[in-house]
Amino acid sequence: MEKNDEKYMRIALKEAKKGKGYTHPNPAVGAVIVKNGKVIGKGYHKKAGLPHAEREAIKDAISKGFDITRSTMYVTLEPCCHYGKTPPCTEAIIDSRIKRVVIATLDPNPLVAGKGVEILKNNGIEVITGVLRKEAEKINEDFFVYIREKRPFIHLKIAQTIDGKIATKTGSSKWITGEKSRRYAHRLRKEATAVMVGVGTVLQDNPQLTVRDYPSKKQPVRILIDKSLKTPVDFRIFDKSAKTVVFTSKTASENKIKTLKEKGIEIVKLPLKEGRFELKDILKELYDMEIMHLLVEGGKEVITQFIMENLFDKISIFQAPKLIGEDGISSVGKLGIEDISEAIEIRIESIKKLDKDIYFELYPV
Amino acid sequence: MEKNDEKYMRIALKEAKKGKGYTHPNPAVGAVIVKNGKVIGKGYHKKAGLPHAEREAIKDAISKGFDITRSTMYVTLEPCCHYGKTPPCTEAIIDSRIKRVVIATLDPNPLVAGKGVEILKNNGIEVITGVLRKEAEKINEDFFVYIREKRPFIHLKIAQTIDGKIATKTGSSKWITGEKSRRYAHRLRKEATAVMVGVGTVLQDNPQLTVRDYPSKKQPVRILIDKSLKTPVDFRIFDKSAKTVVFTSKTASENKIKTLKEKGIEIVKLPLKEGRFELKDILKELYDMEIMHLLVEGGKEVITQFIMENLFDKISIFQAPKLIGEDGISSVGKLGIEDISEAIEIRIESIKKLDKDIYFELYPV
Repeated sequence: MEKNDEKYMRIALKEAKKGKGYTHPNPAVGAVIVKNGKVIGKGYHKKAGLPHAEREAIKDAISKGFDITRSTMYVTLEPCCHYGKTPPCTEAIIDSRIKRVVIATLDPNPLVAGKGVEILKNNGIEVITGVLRKEAEKINEDFFVYIREKRPFIHLKIAQTIDGKIATKTGSSKWITGEKSRRYAHRLRKEATAVMVGVGTVLQDNPQLTVRDYPSKKQPVRILIDKSLKTPVDFRIFDKSAKTVVFTSKTASENKIKTLKEKGIEIVKLPLKEGRFELKDILKELYDMEIMHLLVEGGKEVITQFIMENLFDKISIFQAPKLIGEDGISSVGKLGIEDISEAIEIRIESIKKLDKDIYFELYPV
Repeated sequence: MEKNDEKYMRIALKEAKKGKGYTHPNPAVGAVIVKNGKVIGKGYHKKAGLPHAEREAIKDAISKGFDITRSTMYVTLEPCCHYGKTPPCTEAIIDSRIKRVVIATLDPNPLVAGKGVEILKNNGIEVITGVLRKEAEKINEDFFVYIREKRPFIHLKIAQTIDGKIATKTGSSKWITGEKSRRYAHRLRKEATAVMVGVGTVLQDNPQLTVRDYPSKKQPVRILIDKSLKTPVDFRIFDKSAKTVVFTSKTASENKIKTLKEKGIEIVKLPLKEGRFELKDILKELYDMEIMHLLVEGGKEVITQFIMENLFDKISIFQAPKLIGEDGISSVGKLGIEDISEAIEIRIESIKKLDKDIYFELYPV
């Protein structure tokens, strides 16, 4: 590793973050080209189908009139070496006669990991990997799970009081958390491919589930779990502001299905097992729809099912310094735990103060 | 204020902290004597009945052979000007011919506040007040409430999961939090005059309620709420390791009362109202016993009664990154809240990471 490798990789990571939330099902990637101690080009992957970060950075440098031969490229993810929607980046790098490539992290797909590096090396390019690897993996934590597990990255979101309640006994919950927390929750939506809610939450709150309080160039797909299709057709979740997919069962009214389909709503019928859907069926459908990052927003029953089946990759808890008491609605439903040693352990990755509230970023242990 | 006033007051505050937990019902106070830019004496109030911080500092300076005339004294609380267990400190200061006194905070008792300052000024001493006032008030937050409200400072302690549960449905709770949290909880005990528990917690856990995992020169008084005196006489709370006071009612067995009294346990009978004690009766008794700082350790019913009646000055929550689910036992009982706007708001003063757990220091808003 050379002296300034981390410094330039940090700029590449900053570039990558610009694409965060827009590249699904691709990862967010940034690239920087440095020559004689000067950044001469940078770029990031903007959207699936558009050029990868490496090509954006090359284009940027060339458009500014720089000679990129014998330069160093910093890229947050191993350059691809296969033909997808765009030609392989390794080719562009070799053609540009870049002499050194610094990579933060390898491709997560074990079948391809390292091949991009190999091709570059075979073409006489010096390659360094692992520079700010941890930071780069964090940016694409969703992509990594999506590729490795062949299912969406499952991100549970809970807004609760410090005594663990998401609403009063009457269902009143607007607003438990403050404005800053809610804005941050919209940022989570922006970074997700889809948001999921159960019918109970929809009937209670009639949410629109769009990104409004945070700048975003796209809206996540809205996923509604509604086995008997009880949600009224004029509810906000069915409006034109975003795509909506409903998981329902054969008990749903065919008339209502027809009306919703006419409104452009996608209806997916799934079998029931003991009165509820199996998560594996839902996740299979979502994977096929290229939903890379699923933000599960509630309610309690939906969240609890994911926790019970140990199907979650991240939990975001917004905690307001308020007390509702045990007659309120708990954030997590019954888990059947008898001994304290059986409690589900999670790991606090970070804590952020959002005005009066606390935001916890949690991961499975 | 002079250039180094805060610097020296910080040393005085550090002195004050040495006495924290040992001075009840007196405040923890520290004093520093400075002459020609040099600390020549310091001291703190060690225990009620022993000399005040001012006299300790004077004694320290003189014992080291310093001439303290024309020096400056830094003291974290206004010097007393009345005869209590010891003679007034204002007298000692005047006699020592100290020329300047810097005070962090005035005496909280509105009837005496400012009188100490006045006497010093009338004797030609320059007096400055309010230097690091906030820090000094924090150290004696319990003393201030005790004096102003004529009741103990009420400090609720909760150890819970991140979903607000203090035990599983079977009552299993050992241990929700980690070792570091438990050690910190013992520090809270050390700083309290008394710890309080309800009979339910005692029957469930048979706790000893002493300070063991934190250095301490004293044990807090143990207060047991047990209206029917159900606690077996051989339980740990009745052992010799600390003083114990039981609040019970006329429904208690006279035989058991006799046995407990023979063991040195103090029994206080209080009237019941709708089957429970009134907190005001309990607090009156505790005030008369000079219990300045009451740490309420549980269980849920006891904690909830204090919250319901809005009788708390501080809440310490130790939160473990675990989930138990709604079939566990909630940290706070029923509060009867219907609309979210009625939720009890509290204020996060500080957050500390204790290994995997989070410690919240909370205050009423």
